[in-house]
Amino acid sequence: MSPVSCLLSPLSCLLSPVSCLLSPVSCILSPVLCLLSPVSCILSPVLCLLSPVLCLLSHVSSLLSPVSCLLSHVSSLMSPLSSLLSPVSSLMSPLIHVACVCAGHNATRDVVTLVKSVLFHRRNPLHFHFITDTVANQILSALFQSWMVPSVQVSFYDADELKSEVSWIPNKHYSGIYGLMKLTLTKALPADLSKVIVLDTDITFATDIAELWGIFRKFTDKQVIGLVENQSDWYLGNLWKNHKPWPALGRGFNTGVILLYLERLRRIGWEQMWRLTAERELMSMLSTSLADQDIFNAFIKQNPVLVHQLPCFWNVQLSDHTRSEQCYTEVSDLKVIHWNSPKKLRVKNKHVEFFRNLYLTFLEYDGNLLRRELFGCPSPASLDSVQNALEELDEDDQCYDFRRERLTVHRVHLNFLQYEYTPAPDGTDVTLVAQLSMDRLQMLEAICKHWDGPISLALYMSDAEAQQFLRYAQASEVLKNRKNVGYHVVYKEGQFYPVNLVRNVALRNAKTPYVFLTDVDFLPMYGLYDYLRRTVVHLDMAHTKKALVVPAFETLRYRLSFPKSKAELLSMLDMGTLYTFRYHVWPKGHAPTNYAKWRTATTPYKVEWEADFEPYVVVRRDCPEYDQRFVGFGWNKVSHVLELDAQEFDLVVLPNAFMVHMPHAPSFDISKFRSSSSYRTCLNTLKDEFHQDLSRKYGSAALKYLTAQRTI
Amino acid sequence: MSPVSCLLSPLSCLLSPVSCLLSPVSCILSPVLCLLSPVSCILSPVLCLLSPVLCLLSHVSSLLSPVSCLLSHVSSLMSPLSSLLSPVSSLMSPLIHVACVCAGHNATRDVVTLVKSVLFHRRNPLHFHFITDTVANQILSALFQSWMVPSVQVSFYDADELKSEVSWIPNKHYSGIYGLMKLTLTKALPADLSKVIVLDTDITFATDIAELWGIFRKFTDKQVIGLVENQSDWYLGNLWKNHKPWPALGRGFNTGVILLYLERLRRIGWEQMWRLTAERELMSMLSTSLADQDIFNAFIKQNPVLVHQLPCFWNVQLSDHTRSEQCYTEVSDLKVIHWNSPKKLRVKNKHVEFFRNLYLTFLEYDGNLLRRELFGCPSPASLDSVQNALEELDEDDQCYDFRRERLTVHRVHLNFLQYEYTPAPDGTDVTLVAQLSMDRLQMLEAICKHWDGPISLALYMSDAEAQQFLRYAQASEVLKNRKNVGYHVVYKEGQFYPVNLVRNVALRNAKTPYVFLTDVDFLPMYGLYDYLRRTVVHLDMAHTKKALVVPAFETLRYRLSFPKSKAELLSMLDMGTLYTFRYHVWPKGHAPTNYAKWRTATTPYKVEWEADFEPYVVVRRDCPEYDQRFVGFGWNKVSHVLELDAQEFDLVVLPNAFMVHMPHAPSFDISKFRSSSSYRTCLNTLKDEFHQDLSRKYGSAALKYLTAQRTI
Repeated sequence: MSPVSCLLSPLSCLLSPVSCLLSPVSCILSPVLCLLSPVSCILSPVLCLLSPVLCLLSHVSSLLSPVSCLLSHVSSLMSPLSSLLSPVSSLMSPLIHVACVCAGHNATRDVVTLVKSVLFHRRNPLHFHFITDTVANQILSALFQSWMVPSVQVSFYDADELKSEVSWIPNKHYSGIYGLMKLTLTKALPADLSKVIVLDTDITFATDIAELWGIFRKFTDKQVIGLVENQSDWYLGNLWKNHKPWPALGRGFNTGVILLYLERLRRIGWEQMWRLTAERELMSMLSTSLADQDIFNAFIKQNPVLVHQLPCFWNVQLSDHTRSEQCYTEVSDLKVIHWNSPKKLRVKNKHVEFFRNLYLTFLEYDGNLLRRELFGCPSPASLDSVQNALEELDEDDQCYDFRRERLTVHRVHLNFLQYEYTPAPDGTDVTLVAQLSMDRLQMLEAICKHWDGPISLALYMSDAEAQQFLRYAQASEVLKNRKNVGYHVVYKEGQFYPVNLVRNVALRNAKTPYVFLTDVDFLPMYGLYDYLRRTVVHLDMAHTKKALVVPAFETLRYRLSFPKSKAELLSMLDMGTLYTFRYHVWPKGHAPTNYAKWRTATTPYKVEWEADFEPYVVVRRDCPEYDQRFVGFGWNKVSHVLELDAQEFDLVVLPNAFMVHMPHAPSFDISKFRSSSSYRTCLNTLKDEFHQDLSRKYGSAALKYLTAQRTI
Repeated sequence: MSPVSCLLSPLSCLLSPVSCLLSPVSCILSPVLCLLSPVSCILSPVLCLLSPVLCLLSHVSSLLSPVSCLLSHVSSLMSPLSSLLSPVSSLMSPLIHVACVCAGHNATRDVVTLVKSVLFHRRNPLHFHFITDTVANQILSALFQSWMVPSVQVSFYDADELKSEVSWIPNKHYSGIYGLMKLTLTKALPADLSKVIVLDTDITFATDIAELWGIFRKFTDKQVIGLVENQSDWYLGNLWKNHKPWPALGRGFNTGVILLYLERLRRIGWEQMWRLTAERELMSMLSTSLADQDIFNAFIKQNPVLVHQLPCFWNVQLSDHTRSEQCYTEVSDLKVIHWNSPKKLRVKNKHVEFFRNLYLTFLEYDGNLLRRELFGCPSPASLDSVQNALEELDEDDQCYDFRRERLTVHRVHLNFLQYEYTPAPDGTDVTLVAQLSMDRLQMLEAICKHWDGPISLALYMSDAEAQQFLRYAQASEVLKNRKNVGYHVVYKEGQFYPVNLVRNVALRNAKTPYVFLTDVDFLPMYGLYDYLRRTVVHLDMAHTKKALVVPAFETLRYRLSFPKSKAELLSMLDMGTLYTFRYHVWPKGHAPTNYAKWRTATTPYKVEWEADFEPYVVVRRDCPEYDQRFVGFGWNKVSHVLELDAQEFDLVVLPNAFMVHMPHAPSFDISKFRSSSSYRTCLNTLKDEFHQDLSRKYGSAALKYLTAQRTI
């Protein structure tokens, strides 16, 4: 801190917030620099005389600050400019590049926790570069698009295209071929990207990543890779008899956190160099044990001048039996935690409770809170358009809250759990589509037992609840063995339950040509899945516009022996153990199904739409979406069926299908609004607006809905 | 940073983690110090020669570090010692003292958010000094006792005793008399406490409080109070015509954050001084408008040399129309946010979303995560004893998880909402006692409608859920008008639902001589409260040992017209709309109630205990507690009734009382364990151990329970 900062003091005074940020880094170097202090201080009076000039410079740089933020959003344009600006802009809020290899469903959950920990502490614009397989690409791009974090850019690179670069390397590490891809980043990332921080997915940040980025400036001219020493004894080669690790310098280095000076790596021919190293070592080693880390270490052993050793707190490795404890003496020394034990959170370490708490903090942290803008940086266009729409709303409108809700962009994590589905070759497959929140979780096992086919579920949850759900699903014998259930988490925000938005997420992410649109508190009859698959063929759903109605019943008893057949159902109806759905409170919701006819029907029959009809239907996946203006209780399904009718779908009742509603206490959301008169008034306003929109879309024919509505 | 740190560089190198912590502070001073740089640098070669000596000193100080931590737990002993050690120990992890005035239920919720934000960033041992009324004292002492945060001490001072010190000051501010008490801290706090940070409850920390504490060292010899300038125009006196504020220096100072140098204040006679100021000004002003702040400002106007002005980011005041925006240009400038608008989170400010996110972070943050230990500081005895007990458990015991759960200390926030109860003068009052989690919240309104009397509810929730509950309760017309309901939050931790622990919290915090021990999914008959109050007198409960049984029924229909009388109930029983409770699945839980006899009974009748009897009873509040080894589903009420019988309570069935169980979906917890065989095995093990403990406690008579158990 001392002599160097003395020299720079006039400048650093003006830029003090930035230099403070870097102070822990410079502190590390201070013992060395102390030795130089008498010499350098002689120069200090001279430099102080230069201070007014440096002052002026720094003012110029602060004028440029909004510009550099703006440019960070279009970094491909920016690169040539940023190198011009870099002596100045790097002292302000430089754009920080982070690369991460992420493949598969489970890794996307880890990445989110990593990203949250980075965002929590950051004060700079960030650009994440994700090397992904198809699964992770789909999940992470939907996530970041809906997360809308200001001053964060995301780019994706196809891992499949990189496979050929590393697939020739036999590898025994559990990370598989993806671990090796860190070797290919000079090629995978844009040619004009000069520096990048490379992170494993099992990393948690405890400090601002700008501190780590700042270390690039400490690199000597020759250094190209920044790494922390390995904290286990692996590379010492004495772990067991005949243990023969790859060659490494001393204890070797860990590649969970890497500062990659891409520009220089390209210049020295890194791509050829690591290949040659790998080929040579593989002649005797036959395969890698720790994937890329073995190759990096063998490379460094031959080229020690190329490595810049980072202080160990930049990668505190929590495998069992590591020297990680020697690496920190107080909390403030912990910058980056690396959960590199296969045991993850259950690793044994004296301070594991402390680390675990840090990790859990971000695991359960409300990601919406990370949408905060960086001061001085303009917000991205997507945020601006939401902002403008919000400003156009009239705060005195009594339905303001409803209209505002509609503008909320909910963060979405698709396929939160492992999901595997092979499309049926005959193109007849049907997905059960539903949505739920925590209070209906206990229905999932029963639904899975009643329906073998694919399921697309949207779960409306907070970040903390999503973790509870994860634990539940991983512990449940029924759920953990079902891979054809897609769980899509829609993160909670705002005061309403955006039921139609959540339904649309489930609908959009069904992977079959047909969908069964149901509610989570219904159990389908056993065998409904097979029956529907046959029926979509029989009724030629591929070439006709039909909505197949599955008649709905209900039990008011919470212990029910579920009817095994239509005959059994009918006799339960007669005995009063079952009722037609909402028979007591809202008969017209299902009356048009014509239950009387259904009793004796043996073939499908067409019924006419009537006001307030809200049957559960099977339709093509490309049917209209649910209207998202309806949030919370009321008109959420009605509007959808109405639009199906407007689009001239035939409503066809299935004679041998049924479903039964299971009782539950009234939901929190219903009880919240049942008594509110302003809620009912707004619902009517929204209905009117919906009807007007329908008329615009479907012409005068749609007026019948308005008339039907008014006469009842 | 420069010349001063140059002088200190050899020392600061060794203590670099600490000095880094302080670097943002020293940065502020650097422009001034720059001017001195040429001079001071001449000295630097000389000081570098001293470096080995300073090195040695710092090693000594690091040896003392565990000692100073230890001492921080017994601060009264420590004070004389700490002043001896202060030149050294203040560079390490000094004990930081924080004072806060807190009165009433709502203020305790604010204080928790403040404390969480402080704990989140802190790295030092802390001592909180709370000036409290009886309500806040009870709540906060129970909270901190159960929170068990390492290296945190708490002391309480009775606000009532301080009232006479300030009650003579007419005051118009909404904080009332409590705001004024900040003036009395030299007297209220221990005489040997030399420095303290004083905080309002509406403060959020965005940085380590040690940074603020470090500013005491910047005080000149004369300075005694550190304050931030007021950011509104109030003291300029131009807000409206004839607006006449109290006298102040310029814009005046804000007293939401104060550094009080108590030792010096006592020395200069602060107590007399502020009184004289107040008396003189009151002659013309008649009353204070902003409580203590007016008096502090009038005092400072007369004694400007006594104030040390803090940089404005130490108290960013978010009232409307303040100059707070001028105070920060980037996020890193924000250290302390002060929600000093009566609008609180709804205040208008360009960056309010950012501030709100910071606040919400701590509002919903899992307080259990803040239990992390400080490195290098030994843990307190209470934590150690839990740790020892944990270590004695056998990890291979298949019931390890159950036993571990029993050692978990759950954090408790008593009376989370406003609670008012005046004891009935005749000593006959009965409290309804129950516990619940989020999934039963919708029962609360119905219970309140069925029961007028006092209610004690324990709610098992996460921090985030407690906030959801708060919003629900504040919006509900039924709940917000009921003040005789005590809501006690037991914070979630671990994998089991600690149902008996939660019940005990509700039981212990009932304020009446009698309690009605029920479950939240039951509705008591209308008028049960009055009937029970009459009955406890008739049956002379004060002088006899009785448990009054309220017969339990159930409906399997989730829309029920609730029986208005015993006659109506009996006819519903006959019609099959109602059943005796658990008639279908677990008849013996209530069979001993003898429902046949009850039909015609007109006077109370005694029944005998039988195995697995679990009636809902009215007993004296000093009855035995629930046995906390039973967690989750199974044997949680059975064990309690068994112990009542062991203590020779007579079981007396009430002829004109009844309650009805309302249907609901099976709880998450039941479905989690219903299928687990190891759960059932452990439940049996725990039962055996419970029986053994009973025999030890009640002698051979208790063997009958074991026999009864075995024969069924």
